[in-house]
Amino acid sequence: MDPRVDRHAELIVDRCTDVSEGDNVVLLSGPAAEDLNVALFEKIGERGGMPTKVVLGGREMRSFLRAMDLEAISAPDHMISLMEAADVLINVRASRNVSETSDVAPESMQAFARIMEPIQEHLEDEDTEAVITQHPAPGDAQKAEMSTDGYADFVYDAIDQDWDAQQAHQEQLVEILDPASEVRVVAGEETDVTMSIAGNPAVNSVADKNLPSGEVFTAPLPDSVEGTVRFDMPVVRHGREVEGAYLEFENGEVVAHEAETNEDVLTGILGTDDGARRLGELGIGMNRDIDRFTHNMLFDEKMGDTVHMALGRSIEESVGEDNPKNESAIHLDMIVDMSEDSFIEVDGEVVQRNGTFRFENGFEG
Amino acid sequence: MDPRVDRHAELIVDRCTDVSEGDNVVLLSGPAAEDLNVALFEKIGERGGMPTKVVLGGREMRSFLRAMDLEAISAPDHMISLMEAADVLINVRASRNVSETSDVAPESMQAFARIMEPIQEHLEDEDTEAVITQHPAPGDAQKAEMSTDGYADFVYDAIDQDWDAQQAHQEQLVEILDPASEVRVVAGEETDVTMSIAGNPAVNSVADKNLPSGEVFTAPLPDSVEGTVRFDMPVVRHGREVEGAYLEFENGEVVAHEAETNEDVLTGILGTDDGARRLGELGIGMNRDIDRFTHNMLFDEKMGDTVHMALGRSIEESVGEDNPKNESAIHLDMIVDMSEDSFIEVDGEVVQRNGTFRFENGFEG
Repeated sequence: MDPRVDRHAELIVDRCTDVSEGDNVVLLSGPAAEDLNVALFEKIGERGGMPTKVVLGGREMRSFLRAMDLEAISAPDHMISLMEAADVLINVRASRNVSETSDVAPESMQAFARIMEPIQEHLEDEDTEAVITQHPAPGDAQKAEMSTDGYADFVYDAIDQDWDAQQAHQEQLVEILDPASEVRVVAGEETDVTMSIAGNPAVNSVADKNLPSGEVFTAPLPDSVEGTVRFDMPVVRHGREVEGAYLEFENGEVVAHEAETNEDVLTGILGTDDGARRLGELGIGMNRDIDRFTHNMLFDEKMGDTVHMALGRSIEESVGEDNPKNESAIHLDMIVDMSEDSFIEVDGEVVQRNGTFRFENGFEG
Repeated sequence: MDPRVDRHAELIVDRCTDVSEGDNVVLLSGPAAEDLNVALFEKIGERGGMPTKVVLGGREMRSFLRAMDLEAISAPDHMISLMEAADVLINVRASRNVSETSDVAPESMQAFARIMEPIQEHLEDEDTEAVITQHPAPGDAQKAEMSTDGYADFVYDAIDQDWDAQQAHQEQLVEILDPASEVRVVAGEETDVTMSIAGNPAVNSVADKNLPSGEVFTAPLPDSVEGTVRFDMPVVRHGREVEGAYLEFENGEVVAHEAETNEDVLTGILGTDDGARRLGELGIGMNRDIDRFTHNMLFDEKMGDTVHMALGRSIEESVGEDNPKNESAIHLDMIVDMSEDSFIEVDGEVVQRNGTFRFENGFEG
């Protein structure tokens, strides 16, 4: 077996989570993760844990989603019971074909997403020991327009690294953002947005809930966002891509929007609820081993030289105790390329220009 | 898709179980059942159910079983929670390689079987809506020494039939056994065994907890079995085959045993507990579409012209209210070929000779 698979499994059970004697582990796996699953079952066994593998997605799920009765659909209480009885949740994405649900009606996808919300929330919950990761399967490689083996190199470069060193590197940005009040992000002609992060912690995210990780994120105060943003990477919602999304904020709220493709999808997203029209997250990608966009948010948002902003709910740990938290049924990350013609200002001082931080070589204030 | 797969899925959700609106369904699947799983997810969706697929076996399980710490192993509480929250359980067997655990230590297999006992009991429980079935995967075909497509023909011949007609056919035997007291099974030179079934119901098993089905079974009174039995098909325990097992009973208990191969395995089985030395079941195979042994008990024990006797625990529904029930951690079916030089006597009357029942053409009393 590829030794990188073994190392990946070790990072998952020892660093992202802490599988220990007596732990019940649920492995939520895509259909094409066999090698990683074999390595995970071994590590879980060695540590005295007990694994159960649930397979999500694939041909079965498409078949169910097309057949299910929208009126009759009910909560997956059995799956919720399973997850609540688990000590550790490991979610491995791996597709043979990422378009497997392309012929499922959007309303069925939405209904299914709605009944799966408790499971999503449980996975995201701060108190849940959980990780989301990716096994380099052919379908995901194809989505990235890469060969399967070339994609595997990309995935393991992003995942298999010195996370302690990365943590120390990112801590330099945390020290800037943590005490700060105002952040301004400027890129190209169309992005110039300002927000307050006063009182909200900056989170140093390395190999914990996501693998790969490599970002620092915080939450804007919900009413504070002002300005305009043009997003550089497509946003995908239920299989439809919104390219060139553009948002205008006043008092934190989106007051105008447009998109180069599928603008109606963006309109739909913004109409989800009140919180969906406000930003819940400002994230700064710092994983320089992710050197290209692969149409996979787990990687794209961690990429060095990028900033992402999420419409919708804030992550609990990025909101200060006395600060309001943006609530929404959605959390939709959208990416701005910061590699050129761009800067980030914190309390009036430039801390990054064209992707280079002021604590890095080559920074031009 | 092979229309027989579709029909198989229909039998599972409509006849063996009754998947209805709001039902939470757990699909416990072997690794090589994809086509049947796709069909099942469709049928479950159409009926308003909600499926969760747990994969058992395969390379992952071998990896876990070899790595697990025998001292630390604990109950799979999360899997038990899942099953208890389910309305319907569907267990689909399907192997790519039936020898996947051949290099796992026997004590690990035993320890795992022990912690999985609550799950096994839950599956077997009379009040659980559950079915065990087989998808014709390459590993199972190989075990049967058949081509994959030839094995598929065999599996669907056994499964896809007129179960109402089969039920009526079997009812003729139920009517003989139900009021009866004594059964004697004689085959060849070495099998001549007598037992009391007085007060124990004969169960007409067609397409319910097993698919294929096609047997009538009851329970001997635990102290009543007298005589000797030579079994014609190997018994497999934790991957080791016992060929030519021979048992001698007195007052219901095995007082002598031998085997042509792996006699120590048989000795180990009999030493499990007190109930393991007594018979818990007498079953009579009546599915004539199963026309060969395939080293798969789900099929072998249903085969026409066979009788099986199980060491260990009795099935609840085959034990009369006021009768003692044999209890044991094991339930091990063992088969006697009744196709020639054999007869079954009920209360002194021959009811089957050389595989032909007295209610069938060609019977020679």
